[in-house]
Amino acid sequence: MYRPEIKVLDCTIRDGGLMNNWQFEDDFVRAIFKANCAAGVDYMEIGYKSSESAFSRDENGPWKFCHDTDIVRVLGEDCAEQGIKLAAMADIGRIEYDDIPPKNESVITLIRVACYVHQIDKAIAMVEHCIDKGYETTINLMAVSRAMERDLDEALDDVANSRVPVFYLVDSFGAMYCEQVQRLAEKYIAALPGKTIGYHGHNNQQLAFANTIEAIIRNCNWVDGSMYGIGRGAGNCPLELLMSFLKNPKFDPRPIYETVQKELLPLRQTIDWGYHVPYLITGMLNEHPRSAMKYMAENKDGDIAAFYNYLADGAILD
Amino acid sequence: MYRPEIKVLDCTIRDGGLMNNWQFEDDFVRAIFKANCAAGVDYMEIGYKSSESAFSRDENGPWKFCHDTDIVRVLGEDCAEQGIKLAAMADIGRIEYDDIPPKNESVITLIRVACYVHQIDKAIAMVEHCIDKGYETTINLMAVSRAMERDLDEALDDVANSRVPVFYLVDSFGAMYCEQVQRLAEKYIAALPGKTIGYHGHNNQQLAFANTIEAIIRNCNWVDGSMYGIGRGAGNCPLELLMSFLKNPKFDPRPIYETVQKELLPLRQTIDWGYHVPYLITGMLNEHPRSAMKYMAENKDGDIAAFYNYLADGAILD
Repeated sequence: MYRPEIKVLDCTIRDGGLMNNWQFEDDFVRAIFKANCAAGVDYMEIGYKSSESAFSRDENGPWKFCHDTDIVRVLGEDCAEQGIKLAAMADIGRIEYDDIPPKNESVITLIRVACYVHQIDKAIAMVEHCIDKGYETTINLMAVSRAMERDLDEALDDVANSRVPVFYLVDSFGAMYCEQVQRLAEKYIAALPGKTIGYHGHNNQQLAFANTIEAIIRNCNWVDGSMYGIGRGAGNCPLELLMSFLKNPKFDPRPIYETVQKELLPLRQTIDWGYHVPYLITGMLNEHPRSAMKYMAENKDGDIAAFYNYLADGAILD
Repeated sequence: MYRPEIKVLDCTIRDGGLMNNWQFEDDFVRAIFKANCAAGVDYMEIGYKSSESAFSRDENGPWKFCHDTDIVRVLGEDCAEQGIKLAAMADIGRIEYDDIPPKNESVITLIRVACYVHQIDKAIAMVEHCIDKGYETTINLMAVSRAMERDLDEALDDVANSRVPVFYLVDSFGAMYCEQVQRLAEKYIAALPGKTIGYHGHNNQQLAFANTIEAIIRNCNWVDGSMYGIGRGAGNCPLELLMSFLKNPKFDPRPIYETVQKELLPLRQTIDWGYHVPYLITGMLNEHPRSAMKYMAENKDGDIAAFYNYLADGAILD
């Protein structure tokens, strides 16, 4: 679909890092960057901005913090001049205003603020702080599939009356199918006139790419992918699929194909992200994947029916 | 979605056998059968009916032929009385009328006749022959994504005027996305009043499940899946996803989850079906997957951009 307004964001390092505490080899991060540049990807989200006081450098690689010194060391002094914009995510509750440098001291262009519905006020304030420091911004409202409608309506009202320019529909649990994406996309667009809507899916039910297409059909103009779908648990919309679908002349999927073959397939031998039945079950039941990740880590050959029964009958009461 | 008319067909053995010439262990076939019975699956397609003269028993396992002696030996004398109906596929050009026994001499209930658009007359004749022998029947029109519209219209006219009761929309190359499924499902339904429409997808672009949902939304009532998606190349709609989505009280996805964990994951260590970039490329370019399967077999680390260039620039002219 050729719609020049569509922007593609690669979150390979940021979301993939949730599987290895951002302990990527520098060469890997460089290869992802080069492929994104060559493919015409609009934004590359390289990690999280986090407070050093909140997380240990021993446990977490540099992309948990996204200091400019690390970015420039790995991607080069001229990384902000390659035609792609660098992005970082900031989780409400895990970062202070002072952790964000002024834009003119950073190679990062976009800061995406992630929050739950009860944190929307803090997220709006953080976004406006980042705008005042010179950044492009978004809010990514997580876990909307479990938000109560009244709370969501109030959050959308607050965003409508703010300077937030881009607002993301996020299927954190991989729980949605096309009709739910359609409804929420239409709701967001109606509630947020003049603002851009984005879509970020998860692949628990092998629907991340299909739902991203649905979001595009429903006029979401920012869409996320990660190479070979790397991300927490079942992962994200595979970027190679998304880039193959979009027909904008500036996009070229071939560098993504090559990087999947050369970099992601070998990494997949050591990190087991992607479609698995436990992730299907949490997605279908609209649950956080943490119980599936625990099941996967502890006992791959365990009693999957008992896992389903536990979640279907018990955990949804908690 | 609770719609009692919906029928689920498991094609694990039939389509999966395209990856190993139907050389499954008897215990594996038995486990698939038992899981389907316990899960409430309506039909299990156990293989192809083929002429012994056309294929070698040395190269092909018993499910290339689906003789009743083999079915009864593996599934038991009472396999037709377990609440599930057994099915076999017949490819036009690979079977003679005499290869089909009368229904009262067979444990098979359903014969699905697969054909290309230019073979529709032969397929209708075969279906009517099977009806006269006492079978339930379908036509599965393959590769419709490459049929010319005029030929498709004529084929649909012929089917409309036949005794064919069920007609399948088949995305043989995994080339479709939701809007194409919607259009063809609506076209088939409009052209074939009083007949049932089925859907069979392939997973080249991770869209088989999403497209099956779309087909259900558009009133296709027979839907196919295979466990963990096993099938040629990128495989089919994963049955465990489909059974999780359908809310008909007679369905229970748990036996499918268990069988995926116990039987399909180990098999996946020896047969490499499923999502891979070469299959994405043939799907996206609406090509038969044979070139991708050749690429996969010869050179997994090969030049994927050259493979794309060859297909995108060359093969579509052949």
